Amino acid sequence: MSSGDPGSNLDQTFELGDVSLACGRILPQAQLRYRVYGTLAADRSNLVLYPSSYGARPDDIDWVVGPILDPEHWCIVLVNQFGNGVSSSPSNSDLGLPENGWQLDHRDNLRAQVRLLEEVFKVERPALVYGWSMGAQQAYHWGVLEPQRAQRLCCLCGTARTTPHNRLFLLSLRQALTADPCWNGTGFEGVPEAGLRTFALIYASWAASQPFYRAEPYRRQGYASVEEYVEQAWLPAYRRHDPHDLLTMLDVWLANDVAAAAGCGDDLAAALGRITADTLVMAGSHDLYFTPDDCAAEARLIPGAQFRRIESVLGHRAGNPRDAPEVQAVIRAALDTLLADALTND
Amino acid sequence: MSSGDPGSNLDQTFELGDVSLACGRILPQAQLRYRVYGTLAADRSNLVLYPSSYGARPDDIDWVVGPILDPEHWCIVLVNQFGNGVSSSPSNSDLGLPENGWQLDHRDNLRAQVRLLEEVFKVERPALVYGWSMGAQQAYHWGVLEPQRAQRLCCLCGTARTTPHNRLFLLSLRQALTADPCWNGTGFEGVPEAGLRTFALIYASWAASQPFYRAEPYRRQGYASVEEYVEQAWLPAYRRHDPHDLLTMLDVWLANDVAAAAGCGDDLAAALGRITADTLVMAGSHDLYFTPDDCAAEARLIPGAQFRRIESVLGHRAGNPRDAPEVQAVIRAALDTLLADALTND
Repeated sequence: MSSGDPGSNLDQTFELGDVSLACGRILPQAQLRYRVYGTLAADRSNLVLYPSSYGARPDDIDWVVGPILDPEHWCIVLVNQFGNGVSSSPSNSDLGLPENGWQLDHRDNLRAQVRLLEEVFKVERPALVYGWSMGAQQAYHWGVLEPQRAQRLCCLCGTARTTPHNRLFLLSLRQALTADPCWNGTGFEGVPEAGLRTFALIYASWAASQPFYRAEPYRRQGYASVEEYVEQAWLPAYRRHDPHDLLTMLDVWLANDVAAAAGCGDDLAAALGRITADTLVMAGSHDLYFTPDDCAAEARLIPGAQFRRIESVLGHRAGNPRDAPEVQAVIRAALDTLLADALTND
Repeated sequence: MSSGDPGSNLDQTFELGDVSLACGRILPQAQLRYRVYGTLAADRSNLVLYPSSYGARPDDIDWVVGPILDPEHWCIVLVNQFGNGVSSSPSNSDLGLPENGWQLDHRDNLRAQVRLLEEVFKVERPALVYGWSMGAQQAYHWGVLEPQRAQRLCCLCGTARTTPHNRLFLLSLRQALTADPCWNGTGFEGVPEAGLRTFALIYASWAASQPFYRAEPYRRQGYASVEEYVEQAWLPAYRRHDPHDLLTMLDVWLANDVAAAAGCGDDLAAALGRITADTLVMAGSHDLYFTPDDCAAEARLIPGAQFRRIESVLGHRAGNPRDAPEVQAVIRAALDTLLADALTND
C-alpha cells in the first residue's frame, strides 16, 4: 500500500462509487486521487492526511514531504480535493456548477477522505490532518465534524469559516472568469483568456503582500516588471486548469463554514468548541485574506489551541514556503511541538 | 468670481484652448471644470486648491468644505482632474486611450491647474494644495514640479510614485474592464456590465479594509450580504461613468511618478528632495494600496515633512471620511497645525 521510498506510489485512485453530495445531488463513479509517502506503521498510528489547497496539484505541494513532514516517521497521504482536476471535478466527471444545480462543499471532501482512510488504509484516526489554505479548511472540518477521529490539526493560513472580506476577494475572482466572452451563462465555450488574465492579476495582488512587491524580488528572477511576473509566473498556474474546475474550487471556498456544516447555524463558537484535537493554528503576518486577526480569533474558540504567527512578507504563501527554508523551519518547529507526544511515544 | 456662500458658484468652466499634453498629443479645446467655495482675499493669499480623486465628481467630495476646509477663511477651488467625465475626458472630448496613442498624466493636470489659478484667479502661489488619493498625487506633483508655487501640501492616502503592489491592483481593474465582451481591443461598444461588476468587486475589496468588512457595518444599512452591498453601494458609482473615462483615470494613476515627471529617472529621493512646501502626509492605518509604510517612506524623503497615521478601519477611505466625524476631526487637527502660520497671520 505504501513504501519507504517517497514518491514511489504516485497518483493512486480510490473509487468511491456513486456519492451523495451534501447538496443532494449524486455524483456517479466519484474518485479521490492521492499519493502516499512513507510507510504505514503496523499499528496504523502514523498516518498524516494532507488535503490539497486551491488550484494545487500534488507536484505543487509535495515539497512539504521532508522539510515539514518526515516520511521516515509518518505515512503521509496527500489527497486531492474534489474540483482540482485530479480527483473528481467538472473537467473529468458529471460534477457541475451551481449554475446547473450543483454545490460542492468541504463536507463532501471530508466524507470521501474518511472513507479513503478507513477503506484503503484501515485507519480511523489519523495522527494529524495538516493543511494550508483550503487544506486548513478541510482540517477544520475534520476537527468539528469528526472530533472522535481527528487527533491533531495543523491549520496553516486558513479559516474555519470564510470571512466577509475573503468572500469579496473570491467573488471578484469568480466574476473575473464569468465576465469573459467565453462564458455563456452556465459554462465556458473555450478558454477564457481575458478572464484568466484578470483572475491571475487579482490572485497575485492578494496572495503575496505589499512589502513582498515593494522589494520587487521577481526582478532578480529576470522579470522586467510586476506585470511580466504575473503574466509568466502566475497566469500559467491558472490557465492549466479547466475554468469550470477553478469555479468549483472557488464555490467550495465560498461555502466554507464549519458552523453551518455542523448544524450550528451562525454559532461559530459552538462549532469550534466541538474540536477535541490538539490544534495548531498558524497565520502569516502579512496574509491579506486569511489575516492573522481572523485566524487568531478562531483559535481562541478552539479548546486548548495554540496560535502562532509566521513573520514573513510572503503573505498568504507564508503557509506554503516552498522556496523559503527559514519559514519552513518556523513551521517545522511549531509542528514538532504539536507532535511531541506522538514522537516521544516512539 | 467667488462668494461667501458655499456652493453658490457651481461647476464653472475654464477654457484652456488647444493643449499640448505631456505625451505629445494635442487636446483641442480642453476644459477644466471647477467649483469655488468661499471668497478670495484681496491679497489673494487664501486660495486652497483641491484636485479630485479617482472617479470622484464634485458632489462626492465637496463635503470637506466646512468640516475640513473652512470656507469662511479659505477660498477653496475644487478642480476636476482630466478624465473624470466633468473636465475634458474621453467621454466629452477628443481625448483617447493608450490603445489609440494617448497617455494622459498628472503633468497635464498640473499645467492646466497652474493656468487656472493664474488666468482666472490671478494667483501664483496657492496657500495649500489639499488632495486625497489621486488628489494627493496631484499635490505631490505641485510640490516637486512647481516648488516655487506650492506653499503647503496636504497629501492624504496617496503616493508620489505608484508602488508595484498598487500597480497590480490597478492592472487588475483595467483588465477587469477590458475583459468584457463589449471591449473591441481599442474601445467599448456598449456598457461593459460584466466587467463593471468585476471592477466594483475588486475596488470594494481593496478600498476598505478587512476589519471594516469583518464588522459587517453594511448590515445596519439594510444590506443582506457583502455582495448586495457592493452591487448596490459600489457598482453604481462606477457604472455612472463612461468606461473609457474609468480607463483614462487608471492610466494616469498607473503613470503617476514624480521622479519620472521631474526628469530624475528612478531617483525618487532626488525628486521629493525638491519639495520646499510645508508638507503634511497622512495615511490610513488600514489602507491596503497606499499603505502607511509606503506613505511614511516618501514623507521621509521630503524635507521637513510631517507624517501622521490615521487610525481607522475605513482603510483607504480614511482619507475621505464623509460619514465619519471622528476621522474628520483627526484630519482637521493635523491640517490646522500645518496651517497655523497662515492662520495666525490673520
